[in-house]
Amino acid sequence: MTRFPRSHPRYRSLVIRARLADALRTGLVVPEGLIAHGRAEAFDYLLGERTSASASKAIQAAARWLVVARFPVISVNGNVAALAGPEIAELVRALPTLSVEVNLFHRTPGRAARVAARLRAAGVSQVLGLHPTVRVPGLPSDRGLVDRRGIARADVVLVPLEDGDRTQALRRIGKRVIAIDLNPLSRTSVAADIPVVDELGRALGRLAREVRAERRRPQRRSYPAFDGAAARADALATINRRLATALDRRGSRAAPAPPRTRPARRRR
Amino acid sequence: MTRFPRSHPRYRSLVIRARLADALRTGLVVPEGLIAHGRAEAFDYLLGERTSASASKAIQAAARWLVVARFPVISVNGNVAALAGPEIAELVRALPTLSVEVNLFHRTPGRAARVAARLRAAGVSQVLGLHPTVRVPGLPSDRGLVDRRGIARADVVLVPLEDGDRTQALRRIGKRVIAIDLNPLSRTSVAADIPVVDELGRALGRLAREVRAERRRPQRRSYPAFDGAAARADALATINRRLATALDRRGSRAAPAPPRTRPARRRR
Repeated sequence: MTRFPRSHPRYRSLVIRARLADALRTGLVVPEGLIAHGRAEAFDYLLGERTSASASKAIQAAARWLVVARFPVISVNGNVAALAGPEIAELVRALPTLSVEVNLFHRTPGRAARVAARLRAAGVSQVLGLHPTVRVPGLPSDRGLVDRRGIARADVVLVPLEDGDRTQALRRIGKRVIAIDLNPLSRTSVAADIPVVDELGRALGRLAREVRAERRRPQRRSYPAFDGAAARADALATINRRLATALDRRGSRAAPAPPRTRPARRRR
Repeated sequence: MTRFPRSHPRYRSLVIRARLADALRTGLVVPEGLIAHGRAEAFDYLLGERTSASASKAIQAAARWLVVARFPVISVNGNVAALAGPEIAELVRALPTLSVEVNLFHRTPGRAARVAARLRAAGVSQVLGLHPTVRVPGLPSDRGLVDRRGIARADVVLVPLEDGDRTQALRRIGKRVIAIDLNPLSRTSVAADIPVVDELGRALGRLAREVRAERRRPQRRSYPAFDGAAARADALATINRRLATALDRRGSRAAPAPPRTRPARRRR
């Protein structure tokens, strides 16, 4: 693993990236997963790398839905396992009814087993989705396969970092969908009932705390309403505000031109 | 290589990603390069996946600088070689004074050789940077090494997809720097004299055409001024405008809730 100077302004990002690169070498993550991580990084950077007030409200609503649900399931892909194994284990401890299902966009039996092994190592005792047999209509090839004990019978599905096609398909078959996705314009964020526009690790950590708090409150019997469009609009407004500030701040702070060592001498 | 349904709304992106994933398998690209590509993708998406009027002006200025320069050099890393080999060859045909130098953030002799091989296969006859011996001050480890026949003596350096530290170091030693970088807030964009905020392949293709046009004009002897801060501000304004539009359009178009198959029955 390449070493980075601690003085590098993006040291933390570089280390997380190197971790994903290692997960790639062991076959937990696919190359396309690294590209997806880069997209998420860009949005997190634009959002200020913190959980917004609006994301915080979405996480609170998500916690309520998960506690109300009869069969809540979290869908886990390679990136999610590589980045947030311990946070998923903590969420299951906070909500023992939550099932964990491996769901891979690029599925091979070996990768599914590696994702499950990573989850078990992080403390998740039961992992579904290793032998999915139920087909979700509208999804080509094996991307439509889900576990009959998991997503197939779920009432609420939590999809962190999910593909838009799959999120839409889950909605079409009547699932309540909570997404965690940093892009407020993605098809996943648009299709989800509750789009949590936040970074995976931050969101899952906060979600586990909210679930514990919710379980201590008088119990609800129905799903409180959530305005997903407003949540996404708020995330877009946050980005807009930050860009406007950056524009003010950095636009005027371009480095002054250094002395030129070599004037152009060609074609005099 | 995974096959994608042509009906997928992001089919083209998926194919480009798969190409980079293949470049990873052959060792041309490093995992961190895929993450960087993802970040660039996000910004291109926000910019509308087209060359803006402002980027077009930056490319025109870049063409003028390259034609005025005595020793112009383009610095090439693994991603650049994987994504734009033919475009670089075309740029060298348009401007035979342009030297091509391999410059890797994650350097090994094997990778440098693979990048050079890819460039030669694309039609670049001379590739520098395989045995760099001159050190650029302020850059730790072998990241500071450049070719004495290339960047070390260059007056204008074109850095597509460059690390911020290195761009700043080139400026400190008095090089005129043209960057191609989709993030208008990156340290590379801020440090560059001419930040071209555009996608690599589009920008290089257009740059070659502008260089040919410039060489047909009466020849200049000095570098025309360029306002990099204004160019970056314009890119930020483009993103802001597009987000505002997206907000109007998609905010109100969230999918209507489908019928629910399973009402919550738990804890009645």
